[in-house]
Amino acid sequence: MATVRLLHLSSAFRRHGGPSSPPLPRRLFRLYNRVVRSFSTSMSPPSKAVVYDEQGAPDAVCSVRELPALPIKDEDVCVRMLAVPINPSDINRIEGVYPVRPAVPAVGGYEGVGEVHSVGSAVKELRPGDWVIPSPPFSGTWQTFVVKEQNVWHKIDKRTPMEYAATITVNPLTALRMLEDIVDLKSGDSVVQNGATSIVGQCVIQLARLRGIQSINIIRDRPGSDEVKEKLKKLGANEVFTENQLAVKSVKHFLADIPEPALGFNCVGGNAASLVLKFLKQGGTMVTYGGMSKKPITVSTGSFIFKDLSLRGFWLQKWMGAEKAKESREMIDYLLSLTRSGELKYDMELTPFDQFPTALDKALGKLGSQPKQVIKF
Amino acid sequence: MATVRLLHLSSAFRRHGGPSSPPLPRRLFRLYNRVVRSFSTSMSPPSKAVVYDEQGAPDAVCSVRELPALPIKDEDVCVRMLAVPINPSDINRIEGVYPVRPAVPAVGGYEGVGEVHSVGSAVKELRPGDWVIPSPPFSGTWQTFVVKEQNVWHKIDKRTPMEYAATITVNPLTALRMLEDIVDLKSGDSVVQNGATSIVGQCVIQLARLRGIQSINIIRDRPGSDEVKEKLKKLGANEVFTENQLAVKSVKHFLADIPEPALGFNCVGGNAASLVLKFLKQGGTMVTYGGMSKKPITVSTGSFIFKDLSLRGFWLQKWMGAEKAKESREMIDYLLSLTRSGELKYDMELTPFDQFPTALDKALGKLGSQPKQVIKF
Repeated sequence: MATVRLLHLSSAFRRHGGPSSPPLPRRLFRLYNRVVRSFSTSMSPPSKAVVYDEQGAPDAVCSVRELPALPIKDEDVCVRMLAVPINPSDINRIEGVYPVRPAVPAVGGYEGVGEVHSVGSAVKELRPGDWVIPSPPFSGTWQTFVVKEQNVWHKIDKRTPMEYAATITVNPLTALRMLEDIVDLKSGDSVVQNGATSIVGQCVIQLARLRGIQSINIIRDRPGSDEVKEKLKKLGANEVFTENQLAVKSVKHFLADIPEPALGFNCVGGNAASLVLKFLKQGGTMVTYGGMSKKPITVSTGSFIFKDLSLRGFWLQKWMGAEKAKESREMIDYLLSLTRSGELKYDMELTPFDQFPTALDKALGKLGSQPKQVIKF
Repeated sequence: MATVRLLHLSSAFRRHGGPSSPPLPRRLFRLYNRVVRSFSTSMSPPSKAVVYDEQGAPDAVCSVRELPALPIKDEDVCVRMLAVPINPSDINRIEGVYPVRPAVPAVGGYEGVGEVHSVGSAVKELRPGDWVIPSPPFSGTWQTFVVKEQNVWHKIDKRTPMEYAATITVNPLTALRMLEDIVDLKSGDSVVQNGATSIVGQCVIQLARLRGIQSINIIRDRPGSDEVKEKLKKLGANEVFTENQLAVKSVKHFLADIPEPALGFNCVGGNAASLVLKFLKQGGTMVTYGGMSKKPITVSTGSFIFKDLSLRGFWLQKWMGAEKAKESREMIDYLLSLTRSGELKYDMELTPFDQFPTALDKALGKLGSQPKQVIKF
């Protein structure tokens, strides 16, 4: 399924061309637009989009451009996007480090929330004014209008805070599935994670607490780490340690009344991954879902043979591909309800679309540590 | 269950003492021996054993000693050991690097084959002259006579070559379980392994071939590697590569008509483990069962997230503990039948017991590369 306006246009010409087909020349776009206009009665407004023509550093290859109007076919829904986040995974997709690269030119972004603007003649379940999210998320949400078949949109409760609706899938759903699908945890059990201040990390803490599961959290050593500890504890973290605190042979004495965890999460790599392994109990599992330090994970032979540890990964994009569309919408509704009740929260900064370059710089870490950037159209 | 003569003796005094209780003073041994002699009608012959009084370098801490006769109780079987191997795991146990340390003093060895010498009055299934192996294997086989309850002995076919009977559990059963229990392999599938010249490695090649599974094998670069390749191919290896041959970015072109393997075995660590990971297909699993290089295993974040690889360990001693006694005897009989038919073979050298120090030096690698040492009593 073509997932962005630019790909829509390309695919109309390519017919059976795969995502690796060459990009469509600009003059064919214009020709196509004229042809479509002459046959179509209902058209979307033109869209203002963050486009990249090639993979590379996002601040070098991204530009905001106007894309032509699109026909709204019988099954299509035209959505005016309200808010979209800049996730680390969006940046990685633009950089081209993901194994699946969208054909370029492409529109950035992978999730968000929008309001239905207009619908095709066969659409019954959605009406203008409804709030929807792309579900499963798809590439190309960083634009003001998106036209896609009705079945890719999930209607959500409009009372949800916009920034949570925009960000509910990529991070919170990752946290939920990693907690639920890997190890059978019971109330009173514990988990351990590094990168605990990440949005996934904050969600793990809160979702675990809701199930009576205790969390052991590892953060970087940095100025203000005491405040960070307090903040995570307010979210429900049972223990928070800096990496330096754990530079000891055995971490068992840090556990006090918390049982040794059977499940650990790693989004950092390097030494921070080894710290997660240190905490795990005999037969435990560590799940890797990120590599913030860009360092690999190193494991001793004894950890596998004598401690019987297992290591695996989690990638939401792959999990979602496995026929999980219906199931995952119920999970999303559950997570959205938690954001409305205040049981699930995390820091975000809403930035207007015309300040996209600043938001991107913040997301790229060029302006120091910043909260998650959410673009408001 | 106390598993060696020395522990037998100790435990008779300790009653409920665990394996961590202090060793029994020598004069108590003598006292105990006198007491026992006066009550018991049937006694074992004294045993000549390889004993270590403390954990350490095997050639420093091991000595051959005579141990006193033991009473043969109603359920006991006294076995005259015929042959026992010196496995790397035996060496590790003596060094104390295993997480479970036998209480010292202890007799070395963990498997072997013996002939029933005499039986207690309640023993019906075993008779003098029968060949038996310890099953599951237990610590303390490196001695001329072992007295243990009948249920720890498994009667085997006497037509089995002695050196195979002595070595069938630790290595061949590891190969069999790793092939059968981790990934559901079908005829035509493939596996990849490093340390392919090890006994487990040779067994993997042959057991895989018997099931129509292709094997990709990685060996060290060393003089004579061409002969090693030929030898492994004669056993049924489909491909054999040296580590240097695989020092390329992609190894896919090496596969030719062999499908990418879903399962890999690592007994080396370091770069040799990374080579196994390189060959694995999306979603594949690498099992670590040894660490010959003494180097850890290093894995990229992308291997977990995008390639969806899983890493785990296999340790026969733990697997055996899980109520597998009956099942595993059937597997052993199957493996023994393969050694009789010539379908399973591997290099061994039989060395007389009086040359134990030389055999130990060979097993420790002090005399260069040597075949597996099997002590013949």
